[in-house]
Amino acid sequence: MRATTIHAPYDMRVEEVPDPKVEQPTDAVLRVLRACICGSDLWAYRGEAARQKGQRIGHEFLGIVEETGSDVRGFQAGDLVVAPFMWSDGVCDYCTEGLTTSCVHGGFWGAVGHDGGQGEAVRVPHADGTLVKLPADAASDDHLLSALLTLSDVMGTGHHAALGAGVREGSTVAVVGDGAVGLCAVLAAKRLGAERIIALGRHQVRTDIARRFGATDVVAERGEEAVEAVRNLTRGQGAMCVVEAVGTEQSMSTAVNITRDGGAIGFVGVPHGSGTGLDLGVMFDRNIALRGGVAPVRTYIPELLPDVLDGTIDPSPVFDLTVGLEEVPEGYKAMDARTALKVLVKP
Amino acid sequence: MRATTIHAPYDMRVEEVPDPKVEQPTDAVLRVLRACICGSDLWAYRGEAARQKGQRIGHEFLGIVEETGSDVRGFQAGDLVVAPFMWSDGVCDYCTEGLTTSCVHGGFWGAVGHDGGQGEAVRVPHADGTLVKLPADAASDDHLLSALLTLSDVMGTGHHAALGAGVREGSTVAVVGDGAVGLCAVLAAKRLGAERIIALGRHQVRTDIARRFGATDVVAERGEEAVEAVRNLTRGQGAMCVVEAVGTEQSMSTAVNITRDGGAIGFVGVPHGSGTGLDLGVMFDRNIALRGGVAPVRTYIPELLPDVLDGTIDPSPVFDLTVGLEEVPEGYKAMDARTALKVLVKP
Repeated sequence: MRATTIHAPYDMRVEEVPDPKVEQPTDAVLRVLRACICGSDLWAYRGEAARQKGQRIGHEFLGIVEETGSDVRGFQAGDLVVAPFMWSDGVCDYCTEGLTTSCVHGGFWGAVGHDGGQGEAVRVPHADGTLVKLPADAASDDHLLSALLTLSDVMGTGHHAALGAGVREGSTVAVVGDGAVGLCAVLAAKRLGAERIIALGRHQVRTDIARRFGATDVVAERGEEAVEAVRNLTRGQGAMCVVEAVGTEQSMSTAVNITRDGGAIGFVGVPHGSGTGLDLGVMFDRNIALRGGVAPVRTYIPELLPDVLDGTIDPSPVFDLTVGLEEVPEGYKAMDARTALKVLVKP
Repeated sequence: MRATTIHAPYDMRVEEVPDPKVEQPTDAVLRVLRACICGSDLWAYRGEAARQKGQRIGHEFLGIVEETGSDVRGFQAGDLVVAPFMWSDGVCDYCTEGLTTSCVHGGFWGAVGHDGGQGEAVRVPHADGTLVKLPADAASDDHLLSALLTLSDVMGTGHHAALGAGVREGSTVAVVGDGAVGLCAVLAAKRLGAERIIALGRHQVRTDIARRFGATDVVAERGEEAVEAVRNLTRGQGAMCVVEAVGTEQSMSTAVNITRDGGAIGFVGVPHGSGTGLDLGVMFDRNIALRGGVAPVRTYIPELLPDVLDGTIDPSPVFDLTVGLEEVPEGYKAMDARTALKVLVKP
């Protein structure tokens, strides 16, 4: 089959790789209908996260089950399913508690020896624990497929961020980061009943989506000026719920400084310097909590799915460029240059 | 009156200072019955926290109201009261929500221009918001007075740590730090229904108190060995609830590494390097939350007081040395040398 591989920083290729097949009785093989490129894939693309030459990539996909191992009970060939960005067995202590990202048998698509989502097909370990069935008729609904694809990562990650930030009915929320996850955090906050949602970002195309997703205010400033702007919008106090969806020193520092005393930061930006932006002295004096991390999106899919299916939430606007599988390298270029927000892949 | 002052690192004096008097209509003047020395006072004692020459010190005390300003409604001369370690107005947004440490009119005993607790009397700003009445007959119960004094700081701070760590019925808790706050966190965790409480500490006198307070296990190792020991006690997973009651790089690093995936660290150790011990990458991968800070003990007193009065909890064993006011400098020496755990002062 054809699949995306990474050979060196900025050297993405689409090439022939072995067809996936069932190797363990708990495996399924899935034909990819839709995949996409994640902001976090850019860390590998830019060489800031190490990859072996030829390693697969892509961790967001949905598709049709082609084959199942003998122990797979919940799925059969022909099922339309979505995969979360990590696989998990569904039965260990952590999975039982909903923390599927800590599954003792879990793993990450594109890990050495495993398929990535940006290809024609994927071998899915622990299919019963990992996959979630979608209504069969969604397969013919192009728009809905895009919306459902966000359940594999960005929508669930935005939801995790909102939960970490403590968003509830009536909350005041500020979201640092106008990437797809930040935008989905706005949508998740709105869904959870937030009354005031301040989106920080200076790319109007993106902040326009934020408004569409429920942002009541947009702050285009950065650093100290952003802090002042958010404080001006919140009677000088800051926002009780803050989402950090970037992962850099500056974004975390901004997040700390716009959080109201007693509030919480939901952090989902993969840490790339953000530890240094965390001023523990300030957090101590003002009782600011930090909650979040890699989102157990598998756990969130059953909760979010009905709202996507009935249109209560439509995260699909995060995709602003669609490519075929052979054009994936161009997709990376576009996202790296920030000419695309998030790239949809139709193999 | 006589009061403790700090003139330079290691230069504590007890000397004549002006008698406190009601300055604002919301003030009260309180005659100190019991005060004590806090582990955090040692930061000033050692010169690691700056103080002006002659500044007062001490933030834990209880006593008898001597005089009240014309706006004070809740107290009158003769009332036995306990003061939390910060004053607060009781009516601002933050006080209303229970975050009295963020009070817009709040302050810290011993701040420049203010009395400290280690003296004969104290002017109490915002008396109605700050003080909590105690039963009059407690004044003649020496043991009970010591137990009640812990409500001014260490018992409430231990409770804050336990709440931050998410302790509830059946929890597994690990407490890093065997000082008075760490020990009170053990007691608070027990009170909240923790089933397993692992106390980390290598001073047997202290860990014996921890056991008396409810610790089911004691880990005397430090660093990597402590992490391994806690993991061995928790099926390799770590503790879901961890209290960090020290504030150093090593204590925070230990706290992070003994926390179970999906767990929380309740941090109440005043940060002195602990920011560097916080590995955000680990916290991200394992969804470890951080909650805590300066404890709003004023809010906790009404909840904890009945349990102290009826003996459900008795935090008084944290005091292992009693001095008169003139001997406060010796009390500092003893705590600095760790020959005393916590020093009680009877002016």
